[in-house]
Amino acid sequence: MDIDLYIKEKKALVDAFLERYFSHTVVPETLHKSITYSLSAGGKRIRPVLCLAAYEACGRDPVEAVPYATAFELIHTYSLIHDDLPAMDDDDLRRGKPTNHKVFGEGMAILAGDALLTEAFYLLSNMNSLAIDREGAVPESAILKMIHELAGGAGMLGMVGGQAQDLLSENEEPDAETLFFIHKCKTAALITSSVKAGGILACCSEEKLGSLERYGENTGFAFQVVDDILDVEGETEVLGKTAGSDEKKKKMTYPKLYGIDESRRRARELVDMAIEALTSFDEKADPLRKIAQRLLERRS
Amino acid sequence: MDIDLYIKEKKALVDAFLERYFSHTVVPETLHKSITYSLSAGGKRIRPVLCLAAYEACGRDPVEAVPYATAFELIHTYSLIHDDLPAMDDDDLRRGKPTNHKVFGEGMAILAGDALLTEAFYLLSNMNSLAIDREGAVPESAILKMIHELAGGAGMLGMVGGQAQDLLSENEEPDAETLFFIHKCKTAALITSSVKAGGILACCSEEKLGSLERYGENTGFAFQVVDDILDVEGETEVLGKTAGSDEKKKKMTYPKLYGIDESRRRARELVDMAIEALTSFDEKADPLRKIAQRLLERRS
Repeated sequence: MDIDLYIKEKKALVDAFLERYFSHTVVPETLHKSITYSLSAGGKRIRPVLCLAAYEACGRDPVEAVPYATAFELIHTYSLIHDDLPAMDDDDLRRGKPTNHKVFGEGMAILAGDALLTEAFYLLSNMNSLAIDREGAVPESAILKMIHELAGGAGMLGMVGGQAQDLLSENEEPDAETLFFIHKCKTAALITSSVKAGGILACCSEEKLGSLERYGENTGFAFQVVDDILDVEGETEVLGKTAGSDEKKKKMTYPKLYGIDESRRRARELVDMAIEALTSFDEKADPLRKIAQRLLERRS
Repeated sequence: MDIDLYIKEKKALVDAFLERYFSHTVVPETLHKSITYSLSAGGKRIRPVLCLAAYEACGRDPVEAVPYATAFELIHTYSLIHDDLPAMDDDDLRRGKPTNHKVFGEGMAILAGDALLTEAFYLLSNMNSLAIDREGAVPESAILKMIHELAGGAGMLGMVGGQAQDLLSENEEPDAETLFFIHKCKTAALITSSVKAGGILACCSEEKLGSLERYGENTGFAFQVVDDILDVEGETEVLGKTAGSDEKKKKMTYPKLYGIDESRRRARELVDMAIEALTSFDEKADPLRKIAQRLLERRS
């Protein structure tokens, strides 16, 4: 299996769903433009792809889960828009394009983020259009459980909590405990939720859900460590965002605390642990295994 | 029935639930403080009270629905925090206290709003602690339908869409169509959702749900017209927010378009229509009827 092709195919499913879902212009048009500007800015769709791969690992056809998986991209995109704001990370460039507030103004960017966050839950609770299994719908209890998982990963005990700590820790000396908390909450929590959501929708066993959780946590943590490394080593052109911005903003990062070599070693260790967590899964979990591996090698 | 006492009692139920729900300090503490600062800033809890009154109008005991109704206060509070930001309405005073960003900074205020918005859905999807009817739980389909209703009223087709139009219309000459759109989306949509949610949770008939919707729309619209009037006529001290701020910010308002007398006449007409929408309900809907009346007479 060519994992790059696998990711590309699953990304195309998500992109097509997003395209359809936001094809009706809502009023006011500027809000709609601001939302679709960020959604179509070339994201890797890694969270929905992980959700689909986890669903497939549980023996189901990933096509069925596309609308649900896409909710994670709505949440991720809102978080980027808000994180880039002047009051937060103050970034001008994202995925090679001007950030949302640079184009639409701060007020509209805040509202576009709010709209995307809310829309994720509107989409998930839309029972009419979302019968995931055409033969017999996914149990409503599984959908509710997935909503809870998403809100947990995205909220004050997850991503928002991590971003708040990140904001509070700027200009402070890095310490291991705080850095671990930020990475765990800000990045790993939502990635973990997207993997678990695949299992929840497939109604997998509690034991398998635990394995998916461990896979998600380790993969998510590795993802952020690699992000930190790329910010030091990458080039703005390849990254699509300003390289060296962590250093400029005096962010607490893994390389700053442990150095580049140790950070690389740690990222590899985390990916190994992620793959190890999937031992009870058969070859249907190969996409999950290879995605973790692939995230380690990425250059942007 | 003394409607002020009724509102006070229901508000106390919501306040007690909020107090319990946020009693565990989350990390980072500053985020928790920012969230609870705005939640405990003396809100009238009118949306949850309307939800409880609608639930009661359908023949149920409102105590059962308190956690669900409270989700509307989380959404309302987030919207106030974001609306007050410098990039939006730029308000320094809210309910007689400094606005959230004045105390905690803009970045933390944005995150507190994001956290509250997300928490509403985390709360609603928490099946373990929220068996609404202790005898036999509310059907999961009703909870999903309520989540959809809340997300719809709060999102880009509702409150966020209205706020975006409001932002775009500042400094513009008022016209009736735009003003109607702003009022309908920015204020009436979430109020309508809170009333409908009471009916949805009580599993009322589609016909009754339609009546609750008409009641909610008219009450919500009246609420905003009265708000506009109070901004012209009220005193900062009584309002708890800066009087005359609509005029200062060149906001499009009802009195500006139609004058104060016509605005008062219109508010009364809307309340009459709200009450009329409830003809198929018995005396259990008296709280709803009297709340609409009471909103017309409020001074803050």
